[in-house]
Amino acid sequence: MMQATVGPELARALLNPRSVALVGVSDDPAKTGGRPLQYLRKAGFEGAVYPVNPNRATVQGERAYVDLASLPEVPDHVFVLSPTDSVLGAASECARLGVKVMTVLASGFSESGSQGAAREQELRALARSTGLRILGPSSLGVVRPATGLRLTANAAFAEPDLRSGGVFVASHSGSMIGALVSRGMARGLGFAGLVSVGSESDLSMGEICLSTLDDPAIEGYLLFLESLRHGERLREFALAAARRGKPVVAYKLGRSAAAAEMAATHTGALAGEDDIADAFLKDLGIARVETLAALLEALPLAGRFALDGAAPRRVGVVTTTGGGAAMAVDQLGVRGVVVEPASAETLTRLRDAGISAHPGRVLDLTLAGTRYDVMKTALDVLLEAPEFDLVLAVVGSSARFQPHLAVKPIIDSLQHGKPLAAMLVPDAPQALAQLTEAGVPCFAGPEACADAIASVFARRMPGVQPVASSPAASGRSLSEAQAYTLLDRLGVPRAPAVIASLSGEVPELPFGYPVAAKVCSEHIPHKTEVGGVVLGIEGDAALADAFATLRANLAERAPGIECDEVLLQPMRSGLAEVLVGYRRDADAGPIILLAAGGIWAEVARDRSIRLAPVSVDTARDMIEEVRMLKPLSGLRGKSRGDLEALAQAISALSRLAVLPDAAVLEAEVNPLLVMPQGQGVVAVDALVVQG
Amino acid sequence: MMQATVGPELARALLNPRSVALVGVSDDPAKTGGRPLQYLRKAGFEGAVYPVNPNRATVQGERAYVDLASLPEVPDHVFVLSPTDSVLGAASECARLGVKVMTVLASGFSESGSQGAAREQELRALARSTGLRILGPSSLGVVRPATGLRLTANAAFAEPDLRSGGVFVASHSGSMIGALVSRGMARGLGFAGLVSVGSESDLSMGEICLSTLDDPAIEGYLLFLESLRHGERLREFALAAARRGKPVVAYKLGRSAAAAEMAATHTGALAGEDDIADAFLKDLGIARVETLAALLEALPLAGRFALDGAAPRRVGVVTTTGGGAAMAVDQLGVRGVVVEPASAETLTRLRDAGISAHPGRVLDLTLAGTRYDVMKTALDVLLEAPEFDLVLAVVGSSARFQPHLAVKPIIDSLQHGKPLAAMLVPDAPQALAQLTEAGVPCFAGPEACADAIASVFARRMPGVQPVASSPAASGRSLSEAQAYTLLDRLGVPRAPAVIASLSGEVPELPFGYPVAAKVCSEHIPHKTEVGGVVLGIEGDAALADAFATLRANLAERAPGIECDEVLLQPMRSGLAEVLVGYRRDADAGPIILLAAGGIWAEVARDRSIRLAPVSVDTARDMIEEVRMLKPLSGLRGKSRGDLEALAQAISALSRLAVLPDAAVLEAEVNPLLVMPQGQGVVAVDALVVQG
Repeated sequence: MMQATVGPELARALLNPRSVALVGVSDDPAKTGGRPLQYLRKAGFEGAVYPVNPNRATVQGERAYVDLASLPEVPDHVFVLSPTDSVLGAASECARLGVKVMTVLASGFSESGSQGAAREQELRALARSTGLRILGPSSLGVVRPATGLRLTANAAFAEPDLRSGGVFVASHSGSMIGALVSRGMARGLGFAGLVSVGSESDLSMGEICLSTLDDPAIEGYLLFLESLRHGERLREFALAAARRGKPVVAYKLGRSAAAAEMAATHTGALAGEDDIADAFLKDLGIARVETLAALLEALPLAGRFALDGAAPRRVGVVTTTGGGAAMAVDQLGVRGVVVEPASAETLTRLRDAGISAHPGRVLDLTLAGTRYDVMKTALDVLLEAPEFDLVLAVVGSSARFQPHLAVKPIIDSLQHGKPLAAMLVPDAPQALAQLTEAGVPCFAGPEACADAIASVFARRMPGVQPVASSPAASGRSLSEAQAYTLLDRLGVPRAPAVIASLSGEVPELPFGYPVAAKVCSEHIPHKTEVGGVVLGIEGDAALADAFATLRANLAERAPGIECDEVLLQPMRSGLAEVLVGYRRDADAGPIILLAAGGIWAEVARDRSIRLAPVSVDTARDMIEEVRMLKPLSGLRGKSRGDLEALAQAISALSRLAVLPDAAVLEAEVNPLLVMPQGQGVVAVDALVVQG
Repeated sequence: MMQATVGPELARALLNPRSVALVGVSDDPAKTGGRPLQYLRKAGFEGAVYPVNPNRATVQGERAYVDLASLPEVPDHVFVLSPTDSVLGAASECARLGVKVMTVLASGFSESGSQGAAREQELRALARSTGLRILGPSSLGVVRPATGLRLTANAAFAEPDLRSGGVFVASHSGSMIGALVSRGMARGLGFAGLVSVGSESDLSMGEICLSTLDDPAIEGYLLFLESLRHGERLREFALAAARRGKPVVAYKLGRSAAAAEMAATHTGALAGEDDIADAFLKDLGIARVETLAALLEALPLAGRFALDGAAPRRVGVVTTTGGGAAMAVDQLGVRGVVVEPASAETLTRLRDAGISAHPGRVLDLTLAGTRYDVMKTALDVLLEAPEFDLVLAVVGSSARFQPHLAVKPIIDSLQHGKPLAAMLVPDAPQALAQLTEAGVPCFAGPEACADAIASVFARRMPGVQPVASSPAASGRSLSEAQAYTLLDRLGVPRAPAVIASLSGEVPELPFGYPVAAKVCSEHIPHKTEVGGVVLGIEGDAALADAFATLRANLAERAPGIECDEVLLQPMRSGLAEVLVGYRRDADAGPIILLAAGGIWAEVARDRSIRLAPVSVDTARDMIEEVRMLKPLSGLRGKSRGDLEALAQAISALSRLAVLPDAAVLEAEVNPLLVMPQGQGVVAVDALVVQG
């Protein structure tokens, strides 16, 4: 077995191959299987290209080879265009010859039932055992505009001129690399590379991007995600990109699926896949945009903010059009981004500089008139003002025919240290191109503008890394008593509890009545479902009755389960009930969730998710995001809850991510009672699943 | 006084004048005040244009008149470009001469403090007393591309070629008419007219649009709204447009302001302006879009759905690109629009027609290949399928260079009766132009596509009209007992109540203990604020104590108020508490609101608003929109609440809109208890304000 190609060497074979072979290439350049040869030749790829077709002496006028073994050299990268059933044979041949990377166009693998899944499994095993790296199946290929490498069957690459530049695209959807290239070019983007990652049988999006991080041509990454699969590799890439200061912007499908899960209650279902993905991306410093236009427009802005700096919040807006600026302010507001009015000091400096402006949230220059010197002076003052993290210039009609009036001063202000961006209200493609060319983050519409700013601001510097572990697919539940032992170890406060025997005498209690009695067994994770809970027990006699009730219920509803333990707990109530859940997600890794308890967990998606572990500071941010907890911070004279203790409990539970010996797959404290300020929080039930 | 110009005659003078005068026109065509003359001449306006400037013999090489009286005729439409302080004089002169319409460019009126407001008041009074119609102040003018009427100072109309067409634009923001024209042209729109309505001192957006409804050139309306001011006229226009089948699409600023009002509790503040605007627009059959692109793209789609038909819901999607279609489906889902998979019967018909497709929510033609016959056949089958109200074709890369493959079959399917729309995934301006030209509703991106579809689907056929009345600016509160009399008249169930004297004996009660005692006076609308409520009174002695407490509290906290009445009510509790509020809004007219009660009204905006009156059917829709009420429809084994009785109570309260003799400005039932199914609803407090 040869050494598997990884890192920069992988990037070279994948994106900068010296030689490529096209297996199964068609003679008809219009057919899917004929396109790559046509495109490579049209684009003037300088490396060697070897058509391989056992049935023809020539393909599209070029000599065709009968098989890979007949080639004059071992190609770096083989693109297999032949049908599904020939892929495994081609892969064996590639491995035998020492080909570094093979890309597979065919579908009919894991997405096509059990037979397809078996085929993909075989392909993956072959890659693992031989060191051959495989892109796909279902990959539309890779493109590197700078070298004319159009190793793709995507019809979009019939494009006469591809612009080379600093943007690297990786996409789960093959057709989207074509759409992104055409839309990106319309917005002045140049591309360092585009990869259709297909079903990621071997090479995942994360590994591919990670391998390219040393490429000086790449300034930033655009990801089009259908899911979070292979999240561990994506995490590795995102952390490395954050360290190198290379911005990453992502568009992820699946926002609406979340809405369908409203009625579910346990952590897993509550935290729908998209919620987890959202926390995952933000916590890894990736700007997750919600509009397609922002995916193409956000990168320059993301590049202006260092992830390890203070989180940006405050936008100052200057404009030549009140209505246009209002759209941007409104859209920013919808996304929770604050547009700050200029401070009194800044207004004085503007007046001293001769700028008369309408008072208000936005610096509206309509009164002063649309002139170069007015806009330039205003920008000079705003870019010096300490109250803004970003200055956004919104330009009206003049941008279309007179860009020298209000667009040029923006370009001329770019050298200032503070981030500056522009939004154009009319259709003004030339001005947009000038701004883009000059490197000014700029936006063709208010929604993408606000989306880009909000998503860049929402990125968080990646925090403590969880301990890597290969989570078990399934686990075993702990009893409530065992779960409390874990909470005690973590430092999550819980109600006192006494264990007694259901068949024994009523015990003497270290706490007063009323109490709750709950059957306690690792085999009964959902106690209420078997009638295993009696609440509000008011004395010894009632407790004896409760024991009898529990015994009867167990006999009737859980006949196969041996359970004699009962857990007794004093009845407690708090100002609010919350759910705090930890889970080691298969894709995203460890996550921590805080959700409103009770009925609201069912009807409102009122919760906050982060990658675990989280600091107490981050836990405070999470509490801020749960609406149900707002009254506990003293809203309208309500009693304050002990939110500080809640933050500590969230942080404590999240440390399961760095306690590999605990081997916890899932831990849910529900409810956790939030007591009045100074009185802490109290867990009164917990469920833990160990792997 | 001459007769004020209204209706079609107003539209003629405003948009099709035979002659216009430019008062205060500048000799410098680059200056704001010089632009209209330059633009009119460049555009070849065929009517008479009279420059008026007392200081110059010629303006821009044309003869200038010293004043309006010196013109050879009375012009239909005078555009006043001179400064603020000369506007009133010009208006008097226009009125004296019998000018029909005057447009005012200057600002410095109602938006500029009390002096400006007085100026505007004077201008409005002059219009009312003389019959002169005034557009503005702060109007950038009117444009009619078909006749070259570019009576505007908006720099955007330096545009060499304006496309004439069927779209009429009215905007509160003057600069936006320029942005809309450039963006609209980029999307293939032609314009019948554009009006910058300014501050609407006399002519309002509603009246202007209404006056144009007979214009056969106008196919639909685009409105850019900053607020709902002059809502009554807007309502009149919307109803007339709905009757004529002319679609109206609106973009309204102010969505984010809503978020700031979270902590308020009474109906007025709860129903932030934007919420009311949203209900107003939808209830009048106007498609309110949330993206600027959809404002320009939604009109053809809106025109395909009659408002008086069944509300459309179900979208069928066919595509040549899985990833692209997934974006559209996702965005539709986020906006609550259901993408339906094809029925088994439709799938059979597709198979019989030779179409092989990936199974799933979307008909993905990737397997069958991107070919004219494949797309055409698929569309033929889908357009016949009864399970779809709209068929959306999402086209991938082929749209850019090979529109004959998948775009042409869409155009060729347009004659089918069922609505059909297209979305293009790549940047494909030619294909977009072809589709637009052919009249296919089409979209350049997934967000605007979903936004347009959702907003067109969300329009409601205008219902019963409220009785017109000029609401008093302020009113007087009724006592709780008086409010109950009104509820009894309307048929809103409420708890039994007995009135007693606070200074008298404890009365004999027709209901058992426990009871609530509340001071009852029209001078004490907020009883709890004066300690005027005692709850849970368990017997005669406790009731006597309560009387004493109430007397003492009144003496201490409401010393100036004579109040001896006390209202006694049995303590009741329901499955849920809601707030039902009616209000005669100054702009939107009568509205009805249903909101979650209790703490959730403060932290979650969980409510539904409609224009009043509403039918029981509409009230049922409102209940569906309040998340807090979901458990009451039997979710997860919760007790069902009497939601039918709630719907009846909402509808009953909303009938205040058609009871002018009640003269109610505001009525709030809070809380209204929702009892278990079959047991109705019960109001246990109510506040009514009469005008």
